[in-house]
Amino acid sequence: MLHTSTSTYRYQAVEKQITDMIESGALGLGDKLPSLRRMRRDLGLSISTVHQAYVELERKGVIESRPRSGFFVRRRATRLPRTEPHPSAMTAPRPVTRLGLIQTVLESVGREDAVPLAVIEPGADLLPLTELSKITAAMVRDNPRRALGYSPIPGNADLIRQIAFRSMEYGVPVAPDDPVITVGCMEALYLCLRATCHRGDTVLIQSPTYYCFLQLLETLGLRAVEIPSNPEGGVSPGDLDRALRTYDISACALSPNFNNPDASLTPDEAKQEIVAMLAARDIPLVEDDVSTDLHYTQKRPGTYKQFDQKGLVLLCSSFSKTIAPGYRVGWTLPGRFRQKVLEIKATTNVSTSTPAQMAIAEYLRQGRMERHLKRLRAALEQQMDTMQLHLEQCFPPTTRVTHPCGGVVLWLELDPQVDSVELFFRAGEQGIAIAPGAIFSTGDKFSNYIRLSCGEPMTERIRRGLADLGAMASEMAG
Amino acid sequence: MLHTSTSTYRYQAVEKQITDMIESGALGLGDKLPSLRRMRRDLGLSISTVHQAYVELERKGVIESRPRSGFFVRRRATRLPRTEPHPSAMTAPRPVTRLGLIQTVLESVGREDAVPLAVIEPGADLLPLTELSKITAAMVRDNPRRALGYSPIPGNADLIRQIAFRSMEYGVPVAPDDPVITVGCMEALYLCLRATCHRGDTVLIQSPTYYCFLQLLETLGLRAVEIPSNPEGGVSPGDLDRALRTYDISACALSPNFNNPDASLTPDEAKQEIVAMLAARDIPLVEDDVSTDLHYTQKRPGTYKQFDQKGLVLLCSSFSKTIAPGYRVGWTLPGRFRQKVLEIKATTNVSTSTPAQMAIAEYLRQGRMERHLKRLRAALEQQMDTMQLHLEQCFPPTTRVTHPCGGVVLWLELDPQVDSVELFFRAGEQGIAIAPGAIFSTGDKFSNYIRLSCGEPMTERIRRGLADLGAMASEMAG
Repeated sequence: MLHTSTSTYRYQAVEKQITDMIESGALGLGDKLPSLRRMRRDLGLSISTVHQAYVELERKGVIESRPRSGFFVRRRATRLPRTEPHPSAMTAPRPVTRLGLIQTVLESVGREDAVPLAVIEPGADLLPLTELSKITAAMVRDNPRRALGYSPIPGNADLIRQIAFRSMEYGVPVAPDDPVITVGCMEALYLCLRATCHRGDTVLIQSPTYYCFLQLLETLGLRAVEIPSNPEGGVSPGDLDRALRTYDISACALSPNFNNPDASLTPDEAKQEIVAMLAARDIPLVEDDVSTDLHYTQKRPGTYKQFDQKGLVLLCSSFSKTIAPGYRVGWTLPGRFRQKVLEIKATTNVSTSTPAQMAIAEYLRQGRMERHLKRLRAALEQQMDTMQLHLEQCFPPTTRVTHPCGGVVLWLELDPQVDSVELFFRAGEQGIAIAPGAIFSTGDKFSNYIRLSCGEPMTERIRRGLADLGAMASEMAG
Repeated sequence: MLHTSTSTYRYQAVEKQITDMIESGALGLGDKLPSLRRMRRDLGLSISTVHQAYVELERKGVIESRPRSGFFVRRRATRLPRTEPHPSAMTAPRPVTRLGLIQTVLESVGREDAVPLAVIEPGADLLPLTELSKITAAMVRDNPRRALGYSPIPGNADLIRQIAFRSMEYGVPVAPDDPVITVGCMEALYLCLRATCHRGDTVLIQSPTYYCFLQLLETLGLRAVEIPSNPEGGVSPGDLDRALRTYDISACALSPNFNNPDASLTPDEAKQEIVAMLAARDIPLVEDDVSTDLHYTQKRPGTYKQFDQKGLVLLCSSFSKTIAPGYRVGWTLPGRFRQKVLEIKATTNVSTSTPAQMAIAEYLRQGRMERHLKRLRAALEQQMDTMQLHLEQCFPPTTRVTHPCGGVVLWLELDPQVDSVELFFRAGEQGIAIAPGAIFSTGDKFSNYIRLSCGEPMTERIRRGLADLGAMASEMAG
C-alpha cells in the first residue's frame, strides 16, 4: 500500500516499498527488481517517479544498475534490531549534577563546522524559509507601531487565538485565551516547573529524558526520581504508581510522544491512567509536547492534557521544531497555574518578542501550517529511513537502534564495553557531533548509548561521519 | 545660552529660554515679550522658529497674544518645588511582599484606553518606527536562513560587537565578546540576580526603587535591605557602608542614573567609592543602566561598571526605552559571572529571538542610534518641561516634584494626608493610569507619592487627566 503525503514525495513511498520487500525477504540478494514499466503499470505512477526511487536506492547502495539488464538487489536493506527496554529500576530522589557534562556537549552541538548528528531541529532546508520570512517582513513593514510595541504579558492576542484553535482541533480542551506565549518551549518548561515546585522538591521524570529537563532541575535546585521510559511502550502507569507510593513527588515532567532521546510514545490509555492517578493526588504534570507534531503516523497521537479535567496538566510546546527555531516562540497551556506562570513570566522577561509572534500568528492564520507539516513529516520519515539503512552498514551488528514513528532522533545501544562519553570526545576530535547517553539521565545507566539526529538530509559528509563513528564504536567494543 | 540638539527642536530651546526668564523673574506677569524680529536678531534664528516657540507657549497658557500688540506673559511659568530627601532610615532585611499590589497596578498600566501617565517608555511617535521596521523587513527577507535559525546562547555575534563598541565609547571597559544578549533588561536583571544570589539571601536596594526589582526579589525568594535614594544625590556611600557593616548582604541592585521613580543620579565619585567598598568585600553589584541613554545633560553620566576592576559589576540594559520595547532585546555585561549567567540563560529560554537581534545589530551598524537618541532626548526633555508647567497649574501648591535631568518619569510628593493607593484606584475609575508610591518600596514610606510618566507628548486628554488628578489630590488632602 502506498501512503503518500504529497506528490513531491511519491518516489519515497516507492523506495520504502522496495526496501520493505527486501527486508521481508520478498526480494533476495541479487534478485532483479521489477522493470520501470511494470512498476508504472502496477502502481499507477509515472516512470520518472519510479526511476527517481531506484536512483535513490542505488545512491544508498541498496540496489545496483547493470547496463542493459535493469536493477538488482545489492544487499539486504536491513535495519539494526530494535533497542530493548532498559532493565533499569526506579531511582530514589537525588540531586541532579549533570550540568558540567551537558555544557560540554552543548558547546560541541553548537559547532557549525561539525557533522550535524547532534542538533535536533529539522535542517534549514526543511523550514518554510521563504514563506515565513516574507510574512515577517510584510507584517513588520505594514504594522511598525504594533511591531515595535510591547505585547501583553500572556502574548500577542492573534497568536494566542491561533494556538487555542489548533489545540482544540487535536482534542485538547482549552479556552480561547488560555495559552501563554513563551520564549520557546524551554521557557514554557521553566515557567511551569517554577510555578509548580520549590527548591528542594522532587520531580518525577522518565529515563532517559531530554537533558534540558535535567539542566533545568539542576539550576532550579530540584531533585529527580526516574522511572523507566521504554522505546516501545513509553512510561508505564504501574511504575508511576509505585513511585507515587514510595516518594513525596511535587510534580511530574513527562514527554507524551517521541520522547527525546528514545522516541518512546506512551499509549493514550496509559496517558489517561497516569493523568487520573495524578489527579487523585493533586500532583501537577508538566508535559513536553514539542515533538508530537512530527508524527509519521496517520493520526496525531494524544496528549496528557486532553485527559486533564482538573487543570493539573501544563502542556508545553513551541514552533522551534517545525517552522522557526530562532524566532523563540513557544507556549504553555498552564491550566490552574496560569496566574503563577504569568507572575513569573513578568519578572523573567515581561513578554515575548513582538515581531516573531506577529509573523507566526499570520503564518497560522493563512492556513500554511498543516501543508508545511505534511511535507516536513514526509521528509523527516524519509531521512530517518535512510539513516537506519546506513547505520546497518556502518555499525557492528550487535548495535541496537530505535525504530521511531515520529520525531528527529535515533537512540543507539552500543556494545556494553563502549563508553559513549569517550566516544563523544573521540568523535568530536574527528569533527563529528553526537550526544552521549550519559546526559539523558541522572545516573550512569546509558553509558553505552548515543543519540543521533536525522534532522539533516543524508550527504556524503554525513555518510563518512557515520562510517567513522561506526568504526570507532567497533574498535572500542574491543 | 541656547543648547540645541537638532534644528527640529530649536524652537524648544527658545521656549525654554522664555520660560526660564519668566521663572527667574526677568519677565513678570503682564510683561511684553521681545518682538519676533528682535528675537531673530538676538538669537540668529529664523522668525518662524521664534514664532513656533511663542505659539507653543501660548498653547500652554504661559503667554497670550494681543491683536496688533504682540505677546504678553499671562502667568508665572513656575514649577512645583523640588521633592526633598525622604527622612527614611535604612530598613532591616525583610521578605518582599508587594506582588499583589504590583500586579494590580500593572494591569491598570496595560489598559490601552487609559490616560497614559503610568507607562515608562517613550511614546510610539518617538520611536524610529519606519527606519527600524524597514531594516527588520530587509534583514529577514534577505537572510531567511539566518533569521529563522537559532542564535548562539550569548546572542547574535554582530549585535554583541555593536554593544561592546558602544559600551567602550562611553568608558566601560569591556572585551568585544563580553556582552550577553537577553530578552529585555528584565531578563538581564533576572539572570544576574540568579547568578549572584540564592533563595533566602539578602539584596541591598535603594528606596524608592523600580518595582520590577521588588517583584523579582519576591519571586526569587530574596530578602531586601533598603537604603535611601535621594532625588538630588542618589545613593550615599555612607549609607551603603553602614548597611554593609550591619547586615549580611549577598548582592546590591542599584540604578546609577535617573532611578525609576525618583530620577536620582548618584554622582560619579560616589559610584566609584561604592564600587571600591563592594570590591573590598567581594560583593557583586547588579546595575540597572536602562535609563542612562535618556540623559538631558551634555555628557552621558557614568556607570558603576566603569569603575569595576574585579568583574563584580553586572551591568544590565536594553533597547526598550530607546528604540523598540516590543523587540525584547537587552543585554548584560556580567563580568566574572558570565559562565553562570549563560548556564541560567540556557535553561530559561536558550537564546534571544534572532530577527529582533539581527535588526537592531544592523540599525546600530548603520550608525543610526546616536542621531535618534539626540532627537529622542530633546523631545523627552521638552515633554517633561511641559508636564512640569501643567503640574504647577493642576496640583495644590504644597505638592513637590522632582526636576530630573534625564529619563521619562516624575516623582510627586503629595500632601501627607493623601493615600496614593486610594488615589490610584480613584484615578483608575476616571480612566487615568498612574503608579502609586507604595509599589516602589517594601514598606509604606511613600504612601503619599505618585509617579507620572512624560513618555507621551502633551494632549488635551492628558491635560484634562492631570486637572482631574490634581483635583482628586486636593480633595483627598482635606
